[in-house]
Order: sequence, then C-alpha cells, then structure tokens
Amino acid sequence: MPVYHCDRALLPAGMAADVLLHVEEGRIIDIAHGAPPAGAERLAGIVLPGLASLHSHAFQRGMAGLAETRGPTDDTFWTWRQVMYRFLGALTPEDVEAIAAFAYLEMLERGFTRVGEFHYLHHDRDGTPYADIAELAWRIALAAEATGIGLTLLPSLYVHGGFGGAPAHEGQRRFLNGPDRFARLVLAAEKLVRGLPGANLGIAPHSLRAVGPEELRAVLATHPDLPVHIHAAEQLREVEDCLAWSGMRPVEWLLVHAGLDARWCLIHATHLTARESEALARSGATAGLCPITEASLGDGIFDGPRFLDCGGAFGIGSDSNIEITAPGELRQFEYNQRLGTRSRNVTARRAGESTGRMLYARAAAGGARALRIGEGQLAPGAAADFVVLDREAVDLAHLDGDALMDAYIFVAGAAAIREVHVGGRRLVEAGRHVRRGPIEAAYRRTLRRLSGL
Amino acid sequence: MPVYHCDRALLPAGMAADVLLHVEEGRIIDIAHGAPPAGAERLAGIVLPGLASLHSHAFQRGMAGLAETRGPTDDTFWTWRQVMYRFLGALTPEDVEAIAAFAYLEMLERGFTRVGEFHYLHHDRDGTPYADIAELAWRIALAAEATGIGLTLLPSLYVHGGFGGAPAHEGQRRFLNGPDRFARLVLAAEKLVRGLPGANLGIAPHSLRAVGPEELRAVLATHPDLPVHIHAAEQLREVEDCLAWSGMRPVEWLLVHAGLDARWCLIHATHLTARESEALARSGATAGLCPITEASLGDGIFDGPRFLDCGGAFGIGSDSNIEITAPGELRQFEYNQRLGTRSRNVTARRAGESTGRMLYARAAAGGARALRIGEGQLAPGAAADFVVLDREAVDLAHLDGDALMDAYIFVAGAAAIREVHVGGRRLVEAGRHVRRGPIEAAYRRTLRRLSGL
Repeated sequence: MPVYHCDRALLPAGMAADVLLHVEEGRIIDIAHGAPPAGAERLAGIVLPGLASLHSHAFQRGMAGLAETRGPTDDTFWTWRQVMYRFLGALTPEDVEAIAAFAYLEMLERGFTRVGEFHYLHHDRDGTPYADIAELAWRIALAAEATGIGLTLLPSLYVHGGFGGAPAHEGQRRFLNGPDRFARLVLAAEKLVRGLPGANLGIAPHSLRAVGPEELRAVLATHPDLPVHIHAAEQLREVEDCLAWSGMRPVEWLLVHAGLDARWCLIHATHLTARESEALARSGATAGLCPITEASLGDGIFDGPRFLDCGGAFGIGSDSNIEITAPGELRQFEYNQRLGTRSRNVTARRAGESTGRMLYARAAAGGARALRIGEGQLAPGAAADFVVLDREAVDLAHLDGDALMDAYIFVAGAAAIREVHVGGRRLVEAGRHVRRGPIEAAYRRTLRRLSGL
Repeated sequence: MPVYHCDRALLPAGMAADVLLHVEEGRIIDIAHGAPPAGAERLAGIVLPGLASLHSHAFQRGMAGLAETRGPTDDTFWTWRQVMYRFLGALTPEDVEAIAAFAYLEMLERGFTRVGEFHYLHHDRDGTPYADIAELAWRIALAAEATGIGLTLLPSLYVHGGFGGAPAHEGQRRFLNGPDRFARLVLAAEKLVRGLPGANLGIAPHSLRAVGPEELRAVLATHPDLPVHIHAAEQLREVEDCLAWSGMRPVEWLLVHAGLDARWCLIHATHLTARESEALARSGATAGLCPITEASLGDGIFDGPRFLDCGGAFGIGSDSNIEITAPGELRQFEYNQRLGTRSRNVTARRAGESTGRMLYARAAAGGARALRIGEGQLAPGAAADFVVLDREAVDLAHLDGDALMDAYIFVAGAAAIREVHVGGRRLVEAGRHVRRGPIEAAYRRTLRRLSGL
C-alpha cells in the first residue's frame, strides 16, 4: 500500500504542492495534502493524471516516414492510404505484435498511459481469416501486456469499400468482416480484455464508407453498453461522397440517424458546419482529435473555439503514430487552432486560464470519457495511472503552479517525462521503459525484414 | 588535416554512401568516395550540411512558456508582444549573455550550426545606452564564442513605434537608435565579428513600422555590401496599417521602393498576395520563415506552393526560440503547408522527390544565402559545418538513401543527432554540447533570478 509524496500534482482544481497519493491494488484510494508520513515514497516531480491516446492504429508506426516522398500524382490522404495498404500487405502476426509493442512503449515513454486501439487489421495477407478470428487482436493484447499500457480494444467493423455499399478494394481485404464474423470477433476480444489487467472493450464501426446504415444499426443494438468509435469527416472528399450518397454530411448523418450521445467518439470530425459543431458538442459525444496525424495527412483544421464554447468534449489520439508524443499532440492541437484563427491561447477560453493546463485537463477528461475509464483526474477511486515530470528540468525548475503545464506542453515536451505509472506499476523510470531492450530489438528486426535491408 | 569517413552523407545530388570529407583549417577542401585512407576518422552516421537558424531573438528563449496563459482580452501576437516587453524590461547584460548561450547551445544540440541573430535589444533598462553602445551585441558574441555556433550578427535599426513615424512606446525604449548611434553600433559590431572565427555581419532595419523610408534608404546606402534582414507581413494588422500609411502592403512597398534582391531576407512574409509572392520569389530575396513561432504567435500560413513554383528561396529561423529544433521547424513548415492546402508532400514539387530532403536542402541553401556563408552544401570550399545523425537510430537503421531524410524530419527528429561540427570543431558529442554543464548552470541561475523563485 504505497503512499507517494508528490512535490507537485495536477489536481482537478489546479497544480498543488505536497500532495499525498495513497495507492492500493492499482487504484488511488485517497488524496491528502501536507507532510509525508513515514515510509512515503517521494516522487520528486510534477505528477499528472494519466492521459489516453484514444485513437491508434498501432501497426502504422512501422511505416512512419515511408509516405513522405512525393508520388506520381498530387499527394493527398488518399495516396497516403495506398502506401498504407501496400505496407500492411506484408505484415505477419509477429510483425503486428512487434510494431504494436514498440508503439505502446513509446506512448508510455512520451506521456500516454492508455491507448484506444482502433483495430481494423484482422485477416491474413490474402484476406483469409486466421484460424483464430482474433489472432491479430490477440497480438495487440500481447503488446499491451508486454508494455503494461492500459488497453481499450476497439475491434473495427469494415464491410464495404465506400459509401452505398461499394465493393472493397484489394488493399482492404484484410479488414473485411460481415456481421456474423464481427460478432465472433467481439466475443473473442471480450475474452482477451478480461484476461488483461485494466483493459476494456469498445466497438468501432470504421466509418460510414465502410459500414452501411443497417449494419450500423445492428451492431449498435447488439452492443448497447460499449463505447462506440467511428471515423467521420476527416477529408473533404469524404464529406462530398457522403452528401452524394445520402444528402447529408457524415456528422449530420450520424446526428440524425445514429443517436449520438456520451458513448460515442467521433474520430477527426475535422470538416463540420457550425450547426454540426454545435450539435456534436451538445450531444455529449467526444471529438477524437489527432492533431499530428491531421497535419501530416493534410486533413484540415478542427473548429476548436465553437466546439469548446458549446461545451464539447475532446480527447487526443496518436492515430498514424508517425510521431508519438503526448505533449506534442496537445501543442499541435493548439498551434493548429492558432494558425486557423490567427489568435493565441485558443483552448483556454477565459482570462487567467493556463492553455497548457486546459489542454491537458480537457484531453485527459475527454480521453477517459471516450474509453470509459473514469474522469481522467487524480481522484480517489481512479486507476493509479500517472505521469511524473522532472521538477528539475531546465524549463520547469524556475516555475510553479499552472505555468508548469504551459512549460511542459509548449517548451519542455516529452523530454521532461521521468516516470510513468499505470495501474500502480512503474513502467517508465528515468524516461525509459523498464523493458525497452527486448521490445526495441524485436521492433528493429521487424523493420529490417520488412524493408529488405 | 582530418579525413572523415562518412557512412552516409547528404551531397548536392542526394544521399551518398562512403563519403570522405577532407577538412583543413575549418573548411572542407575535398570530397571523395570510396574506401577510407589510413588514419581516416569514421563518422558512423549520416552527415548533413550545416543548417542555419537564420532568424533568432536569443533573449526570448528565457520567456519560453510565459505567454501561454490567457490574458484579460483576446490573445494575439500583439498581447504576446506586451509580455515580451515586460520580460525584457528586467534583463541585465549578464542575463542576455546567459540566455543567448543556452539558446545557442540548444541550437547546436538540435541541429543548427549557425544563427542569424536579429539583435534589437541595445540599451539599459531605462533606455539609456550603455557606456559601450555595443554592450549587448558583445554579450551575443560572447555567447556565440562560448558555444562555438557560427554567428551572423544583424544589429537592428529601430527608430519609431509604428508606421508614419509614430512615437515609440515605453516597452520599446531599449531598442531605439537614430542613424548616428546606429552607425556607431554597426562599426562596433563589425569589430566584434572580426574577432570571432566564422562570424560575419549584416544589418536589420527592424520593419517598416520601426524604420521610415528615408532612414531605410540611408542605411541601405551606407552599407551597400551587407545582407539586409527585415520583418515583413507577419500579421494582418501590420498589412492593414501599412496600407493605411502608404497605400501599399509591406512586401509590395519593399518591392517598389527598396530594390529587393539577393542581399535581402524578408522575415515571415506570411501575408502575401499572389503577385507579391511571385515578385518576391523572382527578386532573389530569401523568405525567412519561422514555422514554429508563426504557429505559436498565430501569424498564419505562408503560401508555399506558389512561392516554390516561382523558384523562391527560403530559409528557417527559430525566432522566439520557444522550442528549438531544426528538424522540428522543417516538419512544422511542411505541416503548416499541408493544413493550408489540404494535400501532402508540398515542399517536394516533383514526383519521386523526398520531402525531407527537399525541406533540408532548400532551407540549408536559403539560410546560407540569407547569411552570406556559401551554398549550404557539403562541397569543397565550404566551412566544415555539419550535423551527424545516428545511423543506428531506431527510425533510421532500416532505411537508406533520401528516405533517411524523410525519417529524420518527420519521425526521428532531433533525438537522432549525435555530433555537430562547426568550422571543423566537434561541439556536440553523443547528442550533448561539450560545454553543457557551465552554460546550463548559468542559464538556470538567470531564470531563477528573473522568476523570483
């Protein structure tokens, strides 16, 4: 029953000094202030609540950098997707596990305590299901187990290649399941997460391109209690195609037909009208923003001020995992907003609010809501998931209070991370994951084999 | 007379294997290929030509993070500037030196070999000139000397508080010089750079806000052979004010009245019409882009495709130094472009071009042109300024050719930097500046004193 004495801790009311965290069986059971009792362990740093990467396609970490050379036509999200299909066409289950383990290790080292794995890669290279329908879901769970990251497994339903039931392309054959196979997959995934401490389950109808209205209705009805994640309105072409198919924009369609509420997380939600933005905010659904990926893929800029002013909840995801950094995602979100609005301190909506703290607190709360793991705060009853920043980091040592959060997000970044604890276990020490050696070695072997070097 | 054997080196034609760099008295005297001669020193990495941060206000490194809490009104560049004025109001010469030394150390550790210091902080806290008019320029030179970074010192002329000769504010009193004092300052700065290996001089009329037409004409005529740097069109309000004053936009005014050519570097040049963009590109002037600062300050997005398609030259600057990273600036430039155009691989203009290589090569060439230090390439006759990336970095080891540059810029970032050499001296080893200890200690003392902690 450790008691941690935190020099500083980010509590719901703001940054506090001399905080005592009582932890038992992986959960925070009490929070107190003042002098440490005998036997308390000093966390000589700034303790932040755990933060989720609420949207990840772990395997894409292995293709980081491979789509940054210009192709024969104008490059867009859609040409990037072709590169991604070619890359995944070569992956074995062992590759998927090795890449996911390294991605999760990096998430931990760089400030994420949990991942929402939007898992759409299901079958063998020729599209045949593995003997175990959940073979690759199992690999994801093994990667989570090896690294200790909290896992929300989101098996994805992918039926069609485009709006209106268009047939799938060859590059999508590893994703495809009809409703029956998907039901078996979810059952198997449920078993997997039951065996993994701190893990839980959601479902991920991939998008309105890949899932028709009937299929969506069926899967929502079959799993009325699970979180639901869906890609929506990432690209303008997707919006146009959805309009051509249904007369509505993707988020508009979901608002009208899908009954959006707090169990929903809409990934990207980049291209919204003012009405969609307001209605999405009021629905209680979370916007799952992926700022680095949205910049990398040329998606566009989310309308932050309107959504926040309507009380919208958002979390962040590392998505394509081209660069994994929790503070970097938050910084990129705010910078994208500044570029879009030509103003500053956009996420802080009131005078005197620290932008760094607002970014962190909102994303931690939104991530926790979208993955259904509590409030995303340091509070009694919460899982003992937290990040410890180096109090003596050159960019932090001279500051105090919420200003520490501004300096973490905008200046020091992930280099200031010293420890990361998940479920009461210390997984990162002195900035390095405790099992980095073998996980990195396996990842290097996979990259070498895939590149033919 | 060392000979370096480079596993890989980025030559003008692209990434090459087994390159021999012959260095003598701080310059590259020959480049060859093949087996290393006896006594060659192996650089077990990827050797890149030096890259300049062509625009820096070093002292602003000390306020990194202090303007990220929302103020009483809507925050913009202009409210940020108030925070900056308050911060600099407390700086002593010792502070300026300590902050600049740490900023330059970080520039070296994170992939810059040279800095263009746009130096506008001249006088004592009450606006009185120091006994030596170049006191603070001297502190900049000391910081450059202590770290070994290449310095282009750009003393800035600052006369007025706004367009049309508006009086300066109190916050600007440390910047102000009339023509006579500025002439003395430039003379003194000339002496300073003569005493500093590899240093050189330019002039920096601050902006059309701070320098009137007559003053600009006079200073250009007095120094017909020096590089000229000027802030232009960073903010929309600046464009509007310039229109109100002159009937022209800032870059338009400079094109018409100032005779832009290859000796000019226009800092930011964010808000351009298509005609300005094309004319600026064809003028031979360099666009001095500061992507992280331009995002941080909410300036806006430069029109990259048009400028590049007209053959425009650009370099990059770390400007406010809120975050110092050479690959991060290039990545931010490309990402800003992707967000603005909703497409990908914008800086690479032709099929098959590596975006990472194009970003690096163009910025190195543009930075060298703007600071007048050669071509920004590894070539005989160039200064022996180079950056060595870790060939075994997890994101690089499985790649080869120009793809290494994509992975450096978009994935690995500055963490892959192993050595940095300037003028033939190895200043960074194993990712750490050889004099980090005392320079960091002095910086910490300064920050502590300024924060009152």
